[in-house]
Parts: sequence; C-alpha cells; structure tokens
Amino acid sequence: MSAALQAKALLIRAVECDQSGRILEAQTLYQDGIAQLMTFVSTEPDEVKRKGFLTRIKEYMDRADAIKARVNGQLMLGEIVTHLSIEENDTGYDYDQIFGKYMTNQTIEIMLEEPYLSQNYQYQNLIRFLELAVTNCTQLKYVRLVTKKDAANPEQQSTNLGQIKADLERRQISFYIKYEDTLHDRKIFLSNGYIIKIGRGLHFYKASNPMYSIGLTNYRYRKCLQTDVDIWRTSRIPN
Amino acid sequence: MSAALQAKALLIRAVECDQSGRILEAQTLYQDGIAQLMTFVSTEPDEVKRKGFLTRIKEYMDRADAIKARVNGQLMLGEIVTHLSIEENDTGYDYDQIFGKYMTNQTIEIMLEEPYLSQNYQYQNLIRFLELAVTNCTQLKYVRLVTKKDAANPEQQSTNLGQIKADLERRQISFYIKYEDTLHDRKIFLSNGYIIKIGRGLHFYKASNPMYSIGLTNYRYRKCLQTDVDIWRTSRIPN
Repeated sequence: MSAALQAKALLIRAVECDQSGRILEAQTLYQDGIAQLMTFVSTEPDEVKRKGFLTRIKEYMDRADAIKARVNGQLMLGEIVTHLSIEENDTGYDYDQIFGKYMTNQTIEIMLEEPYLSQNYQYQNLIRFLELAVTNCTQLKYVRLVTKKDAANPEQQSTNLGQIKADLERRQISFYIKYEDTLHDRKIFLSNGYIIKIGRGLHFYKASNPMYSIGLTNYRYRKCLQTDVDIWRTSRIPN
Repeated sequence: MSAALQAKALLIRAVECDQSGRILEAQTLYQDGIAQLMTFVSTEPDEVKRKGFLTRIKEYMDRADAIKARVNGQLMLGEIVTHLSIEENDTGYDYDQIFGKYMTNQTIEIMLEEPYLSQNYQYQNLIRFLELAVTNCTQLKYVRLVTKKDAANPEQQSTNLGQIKADLERRQISFYIKYEDTLHDRKIFLSNGYIIKIGRGLHFYKASNPMYSIGLTNYRYRKCLQTDVDIWRTSRIPN
C-alpha cells in the first residue's frame, strides 16, 4: 500500500472510531494518519495539491486536539466512588475483587498508565490485568498502555509487549504502546467512565514465600504492600 | 517426648479422627502410632508388658485394616455422575470449572494420587489445586498426597513438598506425603464421597505460548491436552 493510501485508511478508521465513541483509538489513528501524511506532503511537486494536504492535516490535527481535550477532561473531572487502604501484609485482594465490577461490557477502551514493566512479575501482573479485561469487558476494542522504556533491557521489553500486542490482536483488540519516560502516576482509565488509581499501580503484591505456597497463583492469598486505591467516576458515564 | 508417649499421643488422635469420620487421617495416625510402638516393644524387658504391647499393636492394626477396607471400598463402589472429554487444544477449563462444585464444606479430607511432581509447572498445578481446596473446602483438615519419588531431584522435591506441608499446617490442615513408585493412575478422593478421575491428573495444560499471553495466569484461556474426566459418587455420600 502506498503512503497516501495508508494515510487515508488510517484517517478513515480514525473518523469511524471518533464517531462511535472509541476516542482513545481515534486519537492514536489520527496521530498515525497525520504522521503518514506528513511523510509525503513535502515531496508533493504540485503546490495546489500540497496546500490541499496541509489543509487536511490541519483539520485532522484539530480533531485530534479536540479528542485530547475530551480525554483530559474526563481524567480531570469526576467524583470519587470508592476509597480503599490496603495495609502492609494484608491479604484478600485481587484485581477482580478490587475493581472487577467496574470493568463491564460498556468498557470498549482502556488506557493503562503503568510506568514499570521490566521484571517478570510485572509482565505477569500486566497479563493478569488483561485477562480480567478480556473476561469482563466483552466488547473491548482498544487498549493503550503508557509505560517507561526499560533502560536496562529495551529489546526484551519490546519483544514481550510485541507478543502481548499480537495476542490481543488475535482477539480483535488493538493494543497501542506509548513510551513516556517521565511517567510516574499509575492510572487505569475505562471508557465507561471509571478511573482506577492505585498508588503502586498493578504492582502491590509481595512475592510468594516460599515460592510453592498458597497464594502462588490465587492472589487473594498473596500478601500486599501498603497502597491506597481510589476509584473515580467521571461526569460522562453513559448509563 | 518419649517414644511411648509419642505413640500414645498418635494413637489417641487416631481414635479421635476415626470416631469423627476423618478416616484418611486416622489411617495415617494408626500407622505412625503402630510404627512408634514397634520401636520399643522389642526392647521391653518385662515379658508381660511386652505381650500387652503386642496385643495393643494387634488391635490397632485391625482398626487400621478396617479403615483401609473402608477407604478401598469407597474407591471401588459408586456411580458415575459426570463424564467430560477434553480435546487437544480445547480452552475453557480450569479446576474450579471442572470439579470445583464437588469440593464443598463437607469435604474434610482429600486424597490426591498424582504420580508426577518434579517440574515447576507440576508444583504450580499442585498449588493451584490446593488453593481451590482451601477456598472451597472451608472445613478441610487433612490432605494426603500420593506421588512418585522424583528420581532425578529427590531433595528438591522433598524441599518443595516440605514447604507446602508447613504452609498448609499454618492453616490447620495436616498434609501427609506418601511416596509410591509404582503409582500410575491419577485420582482425587474427596471425603464427601466424590472421586475425580482425570486421565492426565492435574497436568492437562499446555504451556502458554508465547509466555506472556492471555492464559498465563487464568487457565480458562490455556490450551489443553487431550484427556478424559470422570467424576464418581460413592454410595456413602453423607447428605
């Protein structure tokens, strides 16, 4: 496919997603489509066509900015619906029990801001979260992961996340990875309007000790690290 | 504690378990108590006392044999309640979904015959099974594991199973390990009268491939190996 056709295909999908409320995916597609348009606009010899492209790029940038404002607006506004303090060495908490009920078939998009993904147990936590998402959010179409680049082992990280992406795409779920090296806060944004903020993000479990003991696979039996959980509901909940 | 007092304590607990229907644990305790009595009966100088001990040993052996006959009888008799054929590469099966409903708060004892426990994933499956047992069988008091000695790495096996034993005992569940090198068949005997027979025992899952993909921690998404599941109910179901 030529760069122009690729750009067109991306932007058509962007508009479709935008119109059907899949704003996170639309945002990604606008960005990718604009970047693709940019690559050949400067090499276009016909000045009229070039100006035409630039006008279109400006339009799509405006749409992308409008979406960004909507996403940020949703992240800023809202009321707190649940607060939970997990104490050091507490047990009884797994993702499903803490926030599974907010992950519903109304959740078609998820943005996960999780700065640390470099250790085995961190990838395992990511999979555990995605398994819950796949199980509960039956209409899930898009997951955006925002994380830090693993400075020590960037290739391993890229391989692991690439395999997760391929796996989700076999389930018709787009997976978009954004590296952001200044990221600190952890946040899970669900498109049904809930935002889950956990001080330690997904990584609030202690290792099972000894390894083969109750709690190795069922995390309700795992000891936790101290952390706070706040669950927010934005003003734009559909139902 | 002297050998005589140890033997006495074991045999008192054996009788208590026997009377309260915990026949698997009673069987273990009778055997241990008899073995303990044996160690000093031959060194008893007083012939009258020695004969007294031998008479007691004979009595306890008879009780242990009676229990063995009861256990074997339960394992032999019964009717099939469920049959399930799992095909190669099927998904959708975890222990809870297959047999969780038979593991109830009426299950106070479990005997697990699982010949192969030497690889990491096999110990993980054992833990996964025990986590289900601890969760569903709230009155669980005793688990007997029958397995083969790991010829290649007996010390690692002994360490792993020892740690599991200590972990269960912190939960007031006795864990008794019996090595039987000719064991082949897999079987889970529940004291509420159900027997679960799975051709491959607990080990009917394929590895997750690639490792970090949906199914790593939630086994309902794991691909299975071909195996048959038969669930039997003995004639002596309490309710």
